[in-house]
Amino acid sequence: MSTVLQSDLSAVVEGVNMMWVLTVTFLIFFMHAGFAMLEAGQVRSKNVANQLTKNLLTWSVGVIVYFLVGAAISTIVGGATGGGSYSVVGAFTDLYAPEAGSAGVWVDWLFGAVFAMTAATIVSGAVAGRAKLRAYVGYTILLAAVIYPVVVGFTWGGGFLDALGFYDFAGGVIVHAMGGIAGLTAAWIIGPRVNRFNDDGSVNVIPGHSMTFAVLGTLILAFGWYGFNVGTSASPLALAESGEVVLGSFETVGRVALVTTLGMAAGAIGAAGVATYKTGKVDTLYVANGLLAGLVGVTSVTDVIVWPGAIAIGLLAGAQLPIVFEFVEKRLQIDDVCAVFPVHGSAGLLGALAYPFVATAFWSGNASFLSLAIPQITGVVVISLWTFAATALVFGALRAAGQARVSRDHELEGLDSSEHGVDTYPEFGGPDDAGVVRSDGGTVRPDGGTICPDGDVATDSIAVETDSETDTEIKI
Amino acid sequence: MSTVLQSDLSAVVEGVNMMWVLTVTFLIFFMHAGFAMLEAGQVRSKNVANQLTKNLLTWSVGVIVYFLVGAAISTIVGGATGGGSYSVVGAFTDLYAPEAGSAGVWVDWLFGAVFAMTAATIVSGAVAGRAKLRAYVGYTILLAAVIYPVVVGFTWGGGFLDALGFYDFAGGVIVHAMGGIAGLTAAWIIGPRVNRFNDDGSVNVIPGHSMTFAVLGTLILAFGWYGFNVGTSASPLALAESGEVVLGSFETVGRVALVTTLGMAAGAIGAAGVATYKTGKVDTLYVANGLLAGLVGVTSVTDVIVWPGAIAIGLLAGAQLPIVFEFVEKRLQIDDVCAVFPVHGSAGLLGALAYPFVATAFWSGNASFLSLAIPQITGVVVISLWTFAATALVFGALRAAGQARVSRDHELEGLDSSEHGVDTYPEFGGPDDAGVVRSDGGTVRPDGGTICPDGDVATDSIAVETDSETDTEIKI
Amino acid sequence: MSTVLQSDLSAVVEGVNMMWVLTVTFLIFFMHAGFAMLEAGQVRSKNVANQLTKNLLTWSVGVIVYFLVGAAISTIVGGATGGGSYSVVGAFTDLYAPEAGSAGVWVDWLFGAVFAMTAATIVSGAVAGRAKLRAYVGYTILLAAVIYPVVVGFTWGGGFLDALGFYDFAGGVIVHAMGGIAGLTAAWIIGPRVNRFNDDGSVNVIPGHSMTFAVLGTLILAFGWYGFNVGTSASPLALAESGEVVLGSFETVGRVALVTTLGMAAGAIGAAGVATYKTGKVDTLYVANGLLAGLVGVTSVTDVIVWPGAIAIGLLAGAQLPIVFEFVEKRLQIDDVCAVFPVHGSAGLLGALAYPFVATAFWSGNASFLSLAIPQITGVVVISLWTFAATALVFGALRAAGQARVSRDHELEGLDSSEHGVDTYPEFGGPDDAGVVRSDGGTVRPDGGTICPDGDVATDSIAVETDSETDTEIKI
Repeated sequence: MSTVLQSDLSAVVEGVNMMWVLTVTFLIFFMHAGFAMLEAGQVRSKNVANQLTKNLLTWSVGVIVYFLVGAAISTIVGGATGGGSYSVVGAFTDLYAPEAGSAGVWVDWLFGAVFAMTAATIVSGAVAGRAKLRAYVGYTILLAAVIYPVVVGFTWGGGFLDALGFYDFAGGVIVHAMGGIAGLTAAWIIGPRVNRFNDDGSVNVIPGHSMTFAVLGTLILAFGWYGFNVGTSASPLALAESGEVVLGSFETVGRVALVTTLGMAAGAIGAAGVATYKTGKVDTLYVANGLLAGLVGVTSVTDVIVWPGAIAIGLLAGAQLPIVFEFVEKRLQIDDVCAVFPVHGSAGLLGALAYPFVATAFWSGNASFLSLAIPQITGVVVISLWTFAATALVFGALRAAGQARVSRDHELEGLDSSEHGVDTYPEFGGPDDAGVVRSDGGTVRPDGGTICPDGDVATDSIAVETDSETDTEIKI
Repeated sequence: MSTVLQSDLSAVVEGVNMMWVLTVTFLIFFMHAGFAMLEAGQVRSKNVANQLTKNLLTWSVGVIVYFLVGAAISTIVGGATGGGSYSVVGAFTDLYAPEAGSAGVWVDWLFGAVFAMTAATIVSGAVAGRAKLRAYVGYTILLAAVIYPVVVGFTWGGGFLDALGFYDFAGGVIVHAMGGIAGLTAAWIIGPRVNRFNDDGSVNVIPGHSMTFAVLGTLILAFGWYGFNVGTSASPLALAESGEVVLGSFETVGRVALVTTLGMAAGAIGAAGVATYKTGKVDTLYVANGLLAGLVGVTSVTDVIVWPGAIAIGLLAGAQLPIVFEFVEKRLQIDDVCAVFPVHGSAGLLGALAYPFVATAFWSGNASFLSLAIPQITGVVVISLWTFAATALVFGALRAAGQARVSRDHELEGLDSSEHGVDTYPEFGGPDDAGVVRSDGGTVRPDGGTICPDGDVATDSIAVETDSETDTEIKI
Repeated sequence: MSTVLQSDLSAVVEGVNMMWVLTVTFLIFFMHAGFAMLEAGQVRSKNVANQLTKNLLTWSVGVIVYFLVGAAISTIVGGATGGGSYSVVGAFTDLYAPEAGSAGVWVDWLFGAVFAMTAATIVSGAVAGRAKLRAYVGYTILLAAVIYPVVVGFTWGGGFLDALGFYDFAGGVIVHAMGGIAGLTAAWIIGPRVNRFNDDGSVNVIPGHSMTFAVLGTLILAFGWYGFNVGTSASPLALAESGEVVLGSFETVGRVALVTTLGMAAGAIGAAGVATYKTGKVDTLYVANGLLAGLVGVTSVTDVIVWPGAIAIGLLAGAQLPIVFEFVEKRLQIDDVCAVFPVHGSAGLLGALAYPFVATAFWSGNASFLSLAIPQITGVVVISLWTFAATALVFGALRAAGQARVSRDHELEGLDSSEHGVDTYPEFGGPDDAGVVRSDGGTVRPDGGTICPDGDVATDSIAVETDSETDTEIKI
């Protein structure tokens, strides 16, 4: 019955913290199911298996690349740009063969990996329905090896943006805006789906095949997001310098939990409000994506803002969704199929830039507005430019090589058939069943195609709905 | 290497307990995905997006209202009716601006909020297919602000039912029966769906559009329920008055885990047995809803009953499901679309009232039957009456104002179109595709309607199946 | 402010470890939703409700049987064959009425139960579409009461295989290969679905009704698998003999997390590679099932192999999937509907047998190859033979009694109708809608059947696709 030494408690702290990190890592991993369902629901039935395959391969290929290369690149870039000491060889060997006794090295790696793979998977929603599988996987390899790790190196990895004071708690910019900007860039370079835009600049809406899967995906994502945000409070306990056990990052976990909750709720309300103002109806998909945009909005600042700020950012992130989506669609004429830019890109940037206005440090007088604003603006500009440039380079090269998108015939046939040789719903009619073409306030393309004996549509028909300013149909 | 002081361990206890509360809170939040899928699967395809939107808005609107108003109302009602000291202003300010250092206030609030939102979302399944979205959201606001908080104030909040000895461990009555009774009341007041009942009192079955989504929802709910029940053991560790660390509510967590498991299993078996006895076939939806009814049945008493009691309550809760469902449908002629009363209402009441028979305290001789029974009966009566009265008042007022339900045309067209302007499955035929009308032992309505160019059914047809005593079709 | 005694920390260790075990137990329970979706997606729409019901009843019936009988049998078999002391009566009474103060007994039981029910539910995927519900449930009762508990008794329960040195960390053989072999045996004995194989030995592909549900199930399973594998590190903390708190099984949890992740990723890549090599296309279902096969492959050895070994086992487990699936289908002519043998059976055996090649103990020179290999081979042989014999006996007896499978008419009508009296998708066409029959390189059966007024197919038609060596259609 001896007494306990302070040193004895370090195992408690280490074990408890690892438990928490593992638990939230699993939740964040589960977001892949959310993305898979959200994106599958938003594409045509002829492209569902393609979307699902991209999600499976994003994780499978990406996580191995991130283990072999990406994580080390983060360390190196962080050290090189932040002025810290680092070893190029050590960045790899520390991960490949951690010292005996460092139980948490691979746990911490996995915690980083699930964030990296979230950024990667966002892109697939933007380029749905026409990107070549090998082009997408090729880009994912580069994203996991270099493009995302460089962003992490600049910031969480201790690089120059971190030194400058740029703040991103859980990845509203580093993960989500990065993914959203990459998606928009890729969608711009590979061009829209066939028949998405007309020669006169008018827009055809191509509704997704299942709202149910889309909303299921939304709710899985929101569930996982509690891991993403609250989990970033990764050290429930800590050993103080005095040797005492104290709460670690859990000091602020209540704020994180509240802000995450209010942000997502306000996002749904903001999007519902604007959509209803514009059309008189409460578009389900805008409500769902608005909830996600609200989450993205608060992700970068979850632990450092006052709670009315969470409501404000959420409302704005939701409200901008229909507006930015239409801007991308009608003005930029970019076919961002799953609205990844308004949901992850602009909402993420908005949250990071709104930070100074609602920061606890600002309201308590502990920091000046400008001291908070300048690093945020710098970080947003640097990360956006890097992501845009790297993505444009990769997809530009793929396009130049004729490898970026499938042939027109394959696109019309559907990628499930041409890329995967499968039929997602063999009992529920072939892809693009002509029987469900519907028109609301616009014209239906008359080249309806013929139904082959095997149930597929053989000609270049596509189920479209023409959009107009007064149209109340779903936009995303 | 100094020695550890007892006070040093308080951070361990606080951190570990917060970890647990957060983990189970996330699980309970995920039940919204379960409710969304369970309910979406049980409605017609023309009303799926409406059901999904109601689920999204229940959480989004409800949780903000519960933060701004509801939680404080609980505190005030608890104090006012329980004789404790309380401050009206403090009830709000403690939540809006907790003292520095109280890391767990907002964590505890969120833990309460996910229970509140579970009660709220149950109602949407009862009024599916005809309630106006704004009526439903209006009711949800009042439920989150007042109706549910009053129930909590009476009980967990330290009010008069708590003082009387009413026991509800995890919300079998407070959350589930409350939601089930509210749903039944609302469904009664707004009336059944068009064509649900015939003039001669016979019943038409309107089967849900996807059993797969319904069962998926069931299993997500069961997963989340482990958080709901086991999570109510919210203090894994505690500091004893002696200063020692001891197990807190985890002293009984093994019983909670076992009772929850046996209760749900027995619920599925009980419902399967009765359904098979009545029709010779094992109705899938009864098995699924029976599993949930078993869970509801043990929720109020999970930590205080002997395990054979869990099997008994589960079997009864499952067995009453087909019987109560038919009673509500055929005798009361109330259109409780997703069977929320038999699943959440009567099963919850049953569990609370069965408690004295299977209480560990009774079997060990530590409590008399009556001392356990009287508070339970009182609690059940008070909560049922309050819920019924408040819900009847709100929906009665909405009905009187002509705001409770959509027009007949909108109902027949489907709420997805009329309320949301979306088509959940644009590639899989329009809502109420006349091709799937089927008859089993009854008559099919001949006014099959015409298919509009946009694939929707234009006349007032509805896919119905006539029910009869010998009918083996699904009932819920 | 007294000092802390070592004994004081035992509550911390107990509480924290129970928290972890409960958390991962919930995740493993959630795998039932994964299996339900994975299997439902891989069957025809006329058999979906049957598959869902089997999943619900596997858990509900199985877990009660495992509580009343199965867990005790494990203890008895472990004691009897391993030479340990045990009490037949005590095996039951310890579980039915644990000593006061043993908070964790029922938590530990539930942790064991979720593994047992995983083994049980695997079987249902192999016998889909023709097994009688009562035959399946009968087998499940015996599996939960005896067949699986004997395997656990031999191994984790301290029996003779454990004494011999057989190693299975998280159930790659004990749970998964056991389930896969049982499924293959059962599928062999009850025979293939009608029209699955032609008289000339050629094969008809009967594609599942929804790839989306199948992939959703895959991702839910992968999520739950983190509980399954990482959760088997069931003691984050431990009290050392010195009295100090130390990391318990969390000493190796980093390796477990990494190996699980790399194994699943490599599994998807291995299957994708072989499928693409054979057909030129990336079959989505092979990618999904390959991911699962990779998980199965590393499950038995997660904490004791070098990480390149995880990639190697994963690649092999994925790569063998299309090959073994075709061998079972074309050479053995066994109709393993959901590919449970290649995914759970052969992948599980492969991982256990590959262990010596990639063991950390081997590469560090701490163990000879043969000392690792012989126990693994012995264990694999014993468990395979026992599972095969017990399953063959049960299904053989059922078949002899004419109770193993439904009538031909019921099979063609679909089990949803004949066994459950429900229609899973009443709005999306009847089962086996003749309109979706498709042919790829083979012949379509001309007896297409007639469409009844109620939308069902009345004659013995079935939607089939003829397979050939060059066929690129989905195989599983």
